[in-house]
Order: sequence, then structure tokens, then C-alpha cells
Amino acid sequence: MLAAVTRRNHLALVQKPKPRLRPGWALVRVRLAGICNTDIEILRGYHSFEGTLGHEFVGDVVGVASGKDKDWIGRRVVGEINLACAGLGFRHPGQRKMCSYCRRGIPTHCARRRVLGILDHDGAFAEFLALPVVNLHRVPSGISDNAAVFTEPLAAACEILEQVDVRAHREACVLGDGKLAQLIARVLRTSGLRVVMIGKHAGKLRLARLAGIETAHSKSRVSRRADAFTLVVEATGSPSGLTLAQQITTPRGTLVLKSTFHGAADVETWPIVVKELTVVGSRCGPFPPALALLRSGRVDPRPLISRVFALKDAAEAIRYAQRPGVMKVLLRSQNTESNQ
Amino acid sequence: MLAAVTRRNHLALVQKPKPRLRPGWALVRVRLAGICNTDIEILRGYHSFEGTLGHEFVGDVVGVASGKDKDWIGRRVVGEINLACAGLGFRHPGQRKMCSYCRRGIPTHCARRRVLGILDHDGAFAEFLALPVVNLHRVPSGISDNAAVFTEPLAAACEILEQVDVRAHREACVLGDGKLAQLIARVLRTSGLRVVMIGKHAGKLRLARLAGIETAHSKSRVSRRADAFTLVVEATGSPSGLTLAQQITTPRGTLVLKSTFHGAADVETWPIVVKELTVVGSRCGPFPPALALLRSGRVDPRPLISRVFALKDAAEAIRYAQRPGVMKVLLRSQNTESNQ
Repeated sequence: MLAAVTRRNHLALVQKPKPRLRPGWALVRVRLAGICNTDIEILRGYHSFEGTLGHEFVGDVVGVASGKDKDWIGRRVVGEINLACAGLGFRHPGQRKMCSYCRRGIPTHCARRRVLGILDHDGAFAEFLALPVVNLHRVPSGISDNAAVFTEPLAAACEILEQVDVRAHREACVLGDGKLAQLIARVLRTSGLRVVMIGKHAGKLRLARLAGIETAHSKSRVSRRADAFTLVVEATGSPSGLTLAQQITTPRGTLVLKSTFHGAADVETWPIVVKELTVVGSRCGPFPPALALLRSGRVDPRPLISRVFALKDAAEAIRYAQRPGVMKVLLRSQNTESNQ
Repeated sequence: MLAAVTRRNHLALVQKPKPRLRPGWALVRVRLAGICNTDIEILRGYHSFEGTLGHEFVGDVVGVASGKDKDWIGRRVVGEINLACAGLGFRHPGQRKMCSYCRRGIPTHCARRRVLGILDHDGAFAEFLALPVVNLHRVPSGISDNAAVFTEPLAAACEILEQVDVRAHREACVLGDGKLAQLIARVLRTSGLRVVMIGKHAGKLRLARLAGIETAHSKSRVSRRADAFTLVVEATGSPSGLTLAQQITTPRGTLVLKSTFHGAADVETWPIVVKELTVVGSRCGPFPPALALLRSGRVDPRPLISRVFALKDAAEAIRYAQRPGVMKVLLRSQNTESNQ
């Protein structure tokens, strides 16, 4: 099969065998995959991952390793990216069945986890991928492929609702106007909050306004107002975002960190102490609420798609995704044009 | 009266008039004052404060501005350091009676606040100071001056119990072995937690062990164990502490920041996101639980006293307080040797 693999911070298109299945795993034929900033970070050398890139996808189950899972065959699915104890399908002799995080019910922090397209497990920029069936979620028929491919990042946005009691807030500020920031703003908006996005790109801010989100340019005075928001989400993907985020959060306010850029930031941390901020790190999130938002149409991510490339043009797609103003870039692994 | 004032990052001993009282204020004759790292930071130029330094004290009320407060006269007191709306005793025409923080019941974050010896209000390194009576707490007779002078930093340690549900944890790690770290470790210990202090100074760690706290040197292997503690308090007073703190906190763990050093730290923030840490900034705390801990003897801070200087030797005392291995240094404003 065709796969876009990373080797020493380089993307290469290769032919490789279909992934092998372990007990409890399913083989998924990828329809569409999304390019995320993490993929670009990997190519820049911030992770040591070598293998097939990609962790956002929608596809069809075409095979399973265990007979008990055969009902999955033919299902259109999306998949959680963390392979945890329960799904790994192998175990070293003498190891406990579950690590302490899996026992506590937080498999996204599994101590042995592998992560699709990020850590020790081949990803979605390929014709096929393998995942444990416990990671899969069926996609309701009302959700198009172009929307379903956003399930993973939308779930990451939904994670904020699991971590922060948004009912304690009347408004929220999202710092950043990129792909993840746009999804976060839409998710917070569905919770009834007034949402203000602060960004640098007129075109991206316009996209947010079309979804009922207020916007302000980061150079405007309103964006520099100290102590303006009780809830701020930092999703700029840049180290400088944290400093502004601290400034605009009210004393005793909540500051959610979503940016996973690597590289040390020169940050003054005393405002966190003096203002007694609560800073909440937030990563992967739950798929069911994300799928529910897509199914109901309360969040429609499709206007965020900038362009769709064929998998064979993955290298060009990655370059395109880094151009100014470009939002979500998708890779089409199959020639099926159905269910857009 | 004699006062140790800061002028252009310099400490000067001067004669100045006793502080003037505004309605609702009390005049306090200072018995003892404590030197805190914040005082040293001010002298290093990290705050623009010019005036009498010092915010940790125990003293006697010797005068009040309003007849309704005359019962305070003769009382031995400690005082909260934030002068908030309710206590300021003056108001600009047209101003609301209370700022939004005071209305919400968090006067420590008052938008108009002045802070004893730190911000726009003369402090405790003097023979007399003035504070609103709403800031004062009577010191029970069972608490000696040498213990009572620790009430303010001990309250800052107690703030952690207000912010974090420590019952959700079995153990905690305190990073740092300085004055505040020692008080924090003792407070957490009284909550029934196993407490491990990680520090750099053998003598200071020994002091902690005498109070039932486990210790580890920061260069030891145990101190570098990743994901070791669900609750970590960073109180090193140094930028490098945050990096180690992130490392030793478990995924979904809580990391309390107590260090208010100024100057940007070169910090990687991605571990906060990837591990979904909750980082809680923590500053001033409630006096009643601190006084209760002192009264019951459950926390005895007196072994932390390194030396007591006369107020007239404040400059020497400040220099002494910065010597390696020195813990709390006190200034005696009065020649009363009673109630030690």
C-alpha cells in the first residue's frame, strides 16, 4: 500500500505492506486524513517518531483480527489515537494487565501508550491503518466524510468542557485563529458562552465571525485589555501566546493551554502566582460529544477546509498546509468521491 | 520614628513621622517583623516600591482613628497585608464602593489594593505601621511573638488547602527547602499527607526531617523520578524549579506554584498540555487557620529562626538573610523582650 512516512524529519512516499493486526485490532481503509500542526512539528524534528504520519482520519473497517469483532466490518469509523493497555494486544511477561492510568479510567494517559502517527504506531497518511476496535467509533450516516475527518481535533476541543465548568463563566476568549482555535471557539459557543477570538489573520477571523464568534485583531487595544476574561484558551501554537493569555485572564481566572509547540518559551510565571490563575493543560478529548456536535450540525467544520490533495501528493500537501492563511488540508487515500 | 525604607533599590534607615490614620485604621507599634524573599526582590529592583519595607509582623494596637474601634487598643495583633476597598478609608468621587473582586469576596485581589510594605503602603520595618482594623487579627495569648510573626507566610501556605482538595492525594512533594517551602511542607503534613521535600541544602532538609517531613536532595535519583507525585508544590524561588516540577508531577496531577521570582524563565510548557496538568497559582492566604495551627502547636515555626536583629541594624539583617543556609531573620522594633 501507499504511505507517507517520516524519516529523519523528511516526508517520503513509499510502498509498504498493509499493517499487521494484533488480537482485538481492526484494519481500516482510510478515506480521508487531516493534516494537523503536530504532523508539521514531527517533520520539524520535535518528536523522534519515524513511521507513517497522520492521526486524523475517517475510513472503513475492512478486516478484524478476532471473530468477536466481525460486526465492525464495513462500518465507517473514526478512531481515538491513543493505544492504551486494553487495546495494545500484546504484553510483556510479568506485566500487569493495566497500568495505573488505565485502572483509573484515563487511557489517554496510559503509561505504555502508543499514539497513531505520533508515537510507535503507524498513522493515517496511508491507504490502510490498524487500530484496536476499542478505539473505534462508528460515524452516523448524517455526517459527511469531510466533517467526520474533524472528529479527533473536535474531540480535543470538547476536552475543555470535561475539564472546566464553563457554566461558571459568561464569556471566554480564544487566543489564536488557527484550525484548533477555530474548533475550540465553536465548541465553547455551543455551550452558550459569548466567545471572543483574538488572532492575527483577517481571513481566519472572518471565518470565525461566520460561526457567531466575536473577533479582535491581536494588535487592537481590546486584545491588550488586562484582566478582561475569566476563561481564556491559549491555542496560538506559539510561545508568545502564554504571556498575553496571562495578561488578559482575570485574577482567579482559568487559563486553558492547548498549544503543544516544542521549544522553550521565555515566560514570566509570576502572574500565575500573583493573580492565582488556574492553568489547565488540555490534550485529547472524548469522541462521542464531538460526533454528537457534528451530527446535530451545531458545529460544522467544513468551511475550515482549504484544500484536498491525493495521498500521492502528500509532500506537496504538507508544504501547502504551512502557507499563510491556509487552514485544514486533507489527504484523500481512496478514489471514492462518495459521501462528501 | 525609625524606619527602614527602600529608595532606588537601596535600604536606608531614616527618622520619619508616625503613619497617619484614615477612618477605620489602627496604629500598630511593631514588636517583631520578618524578612521575606519578597523584601529582597524589592531591593533588587523587581518592584517599583519606595517606602518602608516589611509585611510580616506582630505588634500592639496603640491607637485607632474611629471611636467604634477603640476596643482594639492594647491588643496584640498580626495583620493581613492587602488593603482592599473596604479598608482603604478613602475613595475618589464617583467611584463605586467596592471593586468587582471585593464584591465577589476576594479582597486579596482587590483592583485598588495597596499592599503593606510592597505596594503604595508603608510596611513593618519601622517602629509603627498603620492598617485598617478589618485587616487585623488578635493573637491568642498562647502564641509567642516569635511564632506569631510567621502568621502571614503560614497563611500563604494554608492558601493551598483552600485551593486544592488535598484529601484526593495521599502524598505531596514540596520543591524547595527555603522558608516558605518549610511552612508549606508543615501545613501539608498536618493534613495527613506523606510529604517529601526536595531541596539543595543539607541543613535545611535536616530542619524539615525534624518536623516529620521526608527529604531528598535535588541531585538524588529519587528527585528525578518522572511522574512520581499527584501533588507537587513549587516553592524553590527559582525559574528552574518549574521544569523539575512538571517532570515529577503525574499526568492529570496538580502543580501548585508559590514562587514569585521575577525574570523570565526559559520553560517548556508542552508537558503541562501533554500531561494535562492543573497548575494552580497561589499567593496570600487566610489568617485564622494559620493562627489555629500556631495556637495548637501543630505547626511550630520557631526552629526556622536563624537570627534576630534590632531594627536599627536592618541593613545588616538583610545582608545576613541572603547568606547561604540562613532561614528566617527577624527585626525587633521594640526593646520589649516579653512574650518570646
